[in-house]
Amino acid sequence: MNLLLEKKLQEIDYIGSALSLMYWDSSTEMPSKGATKRGDLLAHFANDYKTKVTSPELIALIDELALQDNLSDTEKAIIRTIKKKYDFLNCLPEDFYIPFKKDIALAESLWEEAREKNDVTIFLPSLKKIIDGNKLIAKYVGYTTTPYDVFLDEYERGLSTELLDPLFEKLKKECIAIVKNIQQTTSIKHEDIIPKGNYPKEQQKIMSLELMDIIKFSMDAGNLNESTHPVTNSITNDDVRLTVNYNENDFADVYLAALHEGGHGLYEQNIDPLLYGTTLCSGTAMSIHESCSRMYENELGRSKAFLSYYYPRLQELFPQLKDISLEEMYKGLNHCTPSLIRIHADEVTYNLHIIIRYEMEKLMLNEDIPVEELPKIWNQKYKDYLGIDVPSDLLGILQDIHWSNSLIGYFPSYTLGSIYASQLFDVFKKEHLTWEKDISSGNIAPLTEWMKKNIYQYGSIYTPSELIQKITGEEINVDHYINYLKDKYYNVYGL
Amino acid sequence: MNLLLEKKLQEIDYIGSALSLMYWDSSTEMPSKGATKRGDLLAHFANDYKTKVTSPELIALIDELALQDNLSDTEKAIIRTIKKKYDFLNCLPEDFYIPFKKDIALAESLWEEAREKNDVTIFLPSLKKIIDGNKLIAKYVGYTTTPYDVFLDEYERGLSTELLDPLFEKLKKECIAIVKNIQQTTSIKHEDIIPKGNYPKEQQKIMSLELMDIIKFSMDAGNLNESTHPVTNSITNDDVRLTVNYNENDFADVYLAALHEGGHGLYEQNIDPLLYGTTLCSGTAMSIHESCSRMYENELGRSKAFLSYYYPRLQELFPQLKDISLEEMYKGLNHCTPSLIRIHADEVTYNLHIIIRYEMEKLMLNEDIPVEELPKIWNQKYKDYLGIDVPSDLLGILQDIHWSNSLIGYFPSYTLGSIYASQLFDVFKKEHLTWEKDISSGNIAPLTEWMKKNIYQYGSIYTPSELIQKITGEEINVDHYINYLKDKYYNVYGL
Repeated sequence: MNLLLEKKLQEIDYIGSALSLMYWDSSTEMPSKGATKRGDLLAHFANDYKTKVTSPELIALIDELALQDNLSDTEKAIIRTIKKKYDFLNCLPEDFYIPFKKDIALAESLWEEAREKNDVTIFLPSLKKIIDGNKLIAKYVGYTTTPYDVFLDEYERGLSTELLDPLFEKLKKECIAIVKNIQQTTSIKHEDIIPKGNYPKEQQKIMSLELMDIIKFSMDAGNLNESTHPVTNSITNDDVRLTVNYNENDFADVYLAALHEGGHGLYEQNIDPLLYGTTLCSGTAMSIHESCSRMYENELGRSKAFLSYYYPRLQELFPQLKDISLEEMYKGLNHCTPSLIRIHADEVTYNLHIIIRYEMEKLMLNEDIPVEELPKIWNQKYKDYLGIDVPSDLLGILQDIHWSNSLIGYFPSYTLGSIYASQLFDVFKKEHLTWEKDISSGNIAPLTEWMKKNIYQYGSIYTPSELIQKITGEEINVDHYINYLKDKYYNVYGL
Repeated sequence: MNLLLEKKLQEIDYIGSALSLMYWDSSTEMPSKGATKRGDLLAHFANDYKTKVTSPELIALIDELALQDNLSDTEKAIIRTIKKKYDFLNCLPEDFYIPFKKDIALAESLWEEAREKNDVTIFLPSLKKIIDGNKLIAKYVGYTTTPYDVFLDEYERGLSTELLDPLFEKLKKECIAIVKNIQQTTSIKHEDIIPKGNYPKEQQKIMSLELMDIIKFSMDAGNLNESTHPVTNSITNDDVRLTVNYNENDFADVYLAALHEGGHGLYEQNIDPLLYGTTLCSGTAMSIHESCSRMYENELGRSKAFLSYYYPRLQELFPQLKDISLEEMYKGLNHCTPSLIRIHADEVTYNLHIIIRYEMEKLMLNEDIPVEELPKIWNQKYKDYLGIDVPSDLLGILQDIHWSNSLIGYFPSYTLGSIYASQLFDVFKKEHLTWEKDISSGNIAPLTEWMKKNIYQYGSIYTPSELIQKITGEEINVDHYINYLKDKYYNVYGL
């Protein structure tokens, strides 16, 4: 590859690293008054990133590269990703982009204020700006069917409502059916098995660090901090930052969040280090990223195999668990109960939380609904799909940070991640017949190595669909996931 | 001012803010494996900074501004500081500057390794690279008398060995004399008054935060973390990061370090916020910065007035102090004892530590001494000026981080800071006759307000010499400081 092109790609990665550090710092260490100037700083570097990605010199070099024969997969991927970024960013005029980025940077603190005061009207004007800005982006970028498709495609090339609608409709029906079936059983309420309260933060820190050690997330190439919302930021593949939010009322929150973020972190740490500086040294799409995180959270963390290894230690760390058997804990971690908050939801109802947000985003982007109507629509969907009343916006539309960060089109990645995770885990199990025995003895290395071999190392070289086809031999297929959910939950509830 | 010029200056400050965050993070949160790529990142943005500061467009705009009539003090300062940066940076070729910055970024970890193994030879090749690189910089920049003058001037415009030599010679003689006089007394060893050991970190954290509250360092616009070496990083004036290094063996270390860093932090937080984006929104020179920090550490923190307010609380926090009277604690914090480590030195011998480094730097830059000789020369100077033997390089030439960061010419700032602090505090006392009563009741506001009015608010608008003349009516004058030291220490030791 041309040396000048290499240099230009490296520069883009440097700005990416700086931005990643700034985002991490904003959610962990930055003092409150720092937010305004941080917003300006983020906007400046986001624009600098945009300028670099859309520079005519870079595009000329990329076009030149594209004309060559015998391109490597890495080179093909560089051409694909830079062209994609270019297509998206180049059409956004600077006098729109910088003020919009500043609006976004300020929206988070208004969202936080709205949450503190449980007053959604504080946040709605910001949300309107973000929706309008994104509608404008869709116009600038251009679309064939709906504006929302622009953002689905942004998170995963080729994704569209046309592809997602039938997938999500099928999953929605199945999940609603599973919930109804479970609600008709007379079994005990599994969600009440794990006692609440009195899980000291210090013990939870010990647990989180032990879990990182077990899954081999390297603390020499990353760290684990605290923030309001658990998040993973990769500054470089040698410097991957995870956060959790300690909840002294419930160890399970942090137990699952640490494994979830650890799953993201393993992906980033295990990318081929030579990809740093090519713009490909990060996960290929949020859906594959979420398949990694949700696999470690759910397929691993909620499994009887892993619990049979780690639960005795949990009982040591939290003595209040000593009279709860392994079998009970397994049921407690695998209850299915409609509830208000996405991040605390069980595996089944989680999808309904996501599908509600997917439907809301379609409405926000493709229709002209006044923002004041959105909380009502949200609440109605919770009633319809989950059968519950939303008592306040704090427990409703204000619960997620995403829209305040203009992350529209992101939510579907979570459920896509779960679908991919099931497809991948099914192959892993077939290829590793001793998987259950290994995990039961705390040996996670075969899983991590398999993931490294098949996914991690490639960074962004392959698209999600290329990866899934290569590994599983089929396209995205929601049936694996539906079978996984039915098998597990009907078994737990004796159905 | 021209809008385009404003934009260009703002960009320079954005890069400065990003660099500041990266430096802070490197010393607090970055995992060990992150260091190599962080070095590349710092080098990239340092070069980006250099490119922006030396861009022909910027210099043309600055030259244009300089031709205008009725320039404000701010505009004059912008012209002065940009021209100074330009003169220094423009002559450094990129193929020298970037590799040199990478060498520097790697030197710190070699210095740390040398410390861990107490083997100076691990660090010496890096030190040689840094000395040679700086000699080359001096050649590129040009000088009239000696290469070292280039770096003195870099930290404070107009500073030179010609100006410092007589000042430091006088101070050296006086400090050596004070130490000798004190050593001839038969009084008790004041350095043994404060018991060692058992100062829990958690209590020290409470103390540090209380001290920040008392001096009004805003925790909404800054924070206080832990790092191996206490340091202040200003990301913006709304986001000022302090660190201390908790030492459970001695509360006084952290007590003084917190006030010292707090003094730096107050300066940065109280700069006129309108200066952000002009390149003037930071302290005007390290010497004035050190006058602020050393004033809060020494004139305040070691004073009987402040101790009479805060010592009862210290006794509460650390019960082992309960049988030590206020008078004894005052003597304990104001002992004078030759010792090996600069950062733990008393106020008198501290200057000898600095003057040794000043003399070493002159040798390193102006002579051709093999680096292998430097530890011996260091040790001989400690014998000559402080009368002590250096038992190992870890307690000798390896103790400071500065040279590993290529901070040559920085050390004199500490003693210059002490000299300025005495000059300033003498004026403050004259203008605030109730100062002792105020401080004794924990009312630090008059001092902070006076500093804000006279120094903080101006950021880098005025040079140190302009500020000192404006406030005290005279040039730098070491006699105030010598009188302060004699008065205090002869009194403490009953001489």
